[in-house]
Amino acid sequence: MQVAVVTFDGFNELDSFIASALINRCRKDGLEAFITTPTPVVTSMNGVEVSGQRPMEFIPEADVVLIGSGVKTRDVIADDRLLAMLPLDPARQLIGSQCSGALVLARLGLLGGMPVCADITSRPFVEEFGVTVLDAPFHAEGNIASAGGCLASQYLAAWVMTRTLGEDAARASIGYAAPVGEQQETVERVMSAVRSGEPALR
Amino acid sequence: MQVAVVTFDGFNELDSFIASALINRCRKDGLEAFITTPTPVVTSMNGVEVSGQRPMEFIPEADVVLIGSGVKTRDVIADDRLLAMLPLDPARQLIGSQCSGALVLARLGLLGGMPVCADITSRPFVEEFGVTVLDAPFHAEGNIASAGGCLASQYLAAWVMTRTLGEDAARASIGYAAPVGEQQETVERVMSAVRSGEPALR
Repeated sequence: MQVAVVTFDGFNELDSFIASALINRCRKDGLEAFITTPTPVVTSMNGVEVSGQRPMEFIPEADVVLIGSGVKTRDVIADDRLLAMLPLDPARQLIGSQCSGALVLARLGLLGGMPVCADITSRPFVEEFGVTVLDAPFHAEGNIASAGGCLASQYLAAWVMTRTLGEDAARASIGYAAPVGEQQETVERVMSAVRSGEPALR
Repeated sequence: MQVAVVTFDGFNELDSFIASALINRCRKDGLEAFITTPTPVVTSMNGVEVSGQRPMEFIPEADVVLIGSGVKTRDVIADDRLLAMLPLDPARQLIGSQCSGALVLARLGLLGGMPVCADITSRPFVEEFGVTVLDAPFHAEGNIASAGGCLASQYLAAWVMTRTLGEDAARASIGYAAPVGEQQETVERVMSAVRSGEPALR
């Protein structure tokens, strides 16, 4: 199974790399994440140049698509050429957004009436689409999830691992990455946040 | 003030990017982090190609040097040419290691008798240098700190921000990045881990 971590120019490193690195702990189990970009190289909000591992043409092949966040997401949703590169299909794909990535889901009309999570900076722009933004770090309904606050990317990654490989795989990845001596409390906190945000998993 | 986040081929994205992105929330306060690499481009353990923002020649200018982790750190400490590019000076610089980065501090003879934190995979190799590895996520003495477990990079970043700009700056950065609705508990958990690991800050 393949995960596209969609990463635009101006991206936030926490949002794209926490999710991709945690998910890639599951590569041996057949789940792999790729930084997916509209240009061969993208530059982060802090000036780090990263080469995409996959082009946008990879998106229809992906089993999971996560939309990262950054300082230029409002430009992304104003760019019809970029939006046309995002033929997301929640009937067939798991779809998640991190922080301002929720703007992309809103703009693409994927949310129906469901609320989302987003960071406080993005919140008013998401609300302009008539979408409710929750005071919570993670929310999922069916095949669509959203996370708010950079470090909530752990929750988005745990949701992806749980939905594709099961809870044990998510626990193993989070436990491996947790601070030494804090494995159990970290795993329980993350899994609890995912369960709280996804009523169907409770 | 400038922070070199030393990043070798085979690096772990969590280790280099969580620290650098959190620290760069303080750029407006005059603290800035740069991915610092021995070659113009390095490739992560998951195949992501990243261009260095600074070459190794930047290290003597840096006020803070953090040694990231990765799957090739044992090659790094066997490479005298690479080690010669690390003229670290704990009298003048704050120095920190993440996970296997502790091997570099041990190999450079910077630790004296102090124990370190490192991930469980790196632990036996650090112990070969006669260095004690703690069952804890973060430890600091004077100007040298170490963190173990990828997500403990938050603690290393908070230590750097606290030591350079003060605790308020660290709290603001961690609070901004925290999951929505979990700001206060995240900040308290991180600052508590830093205080527990640095007796001088208690």
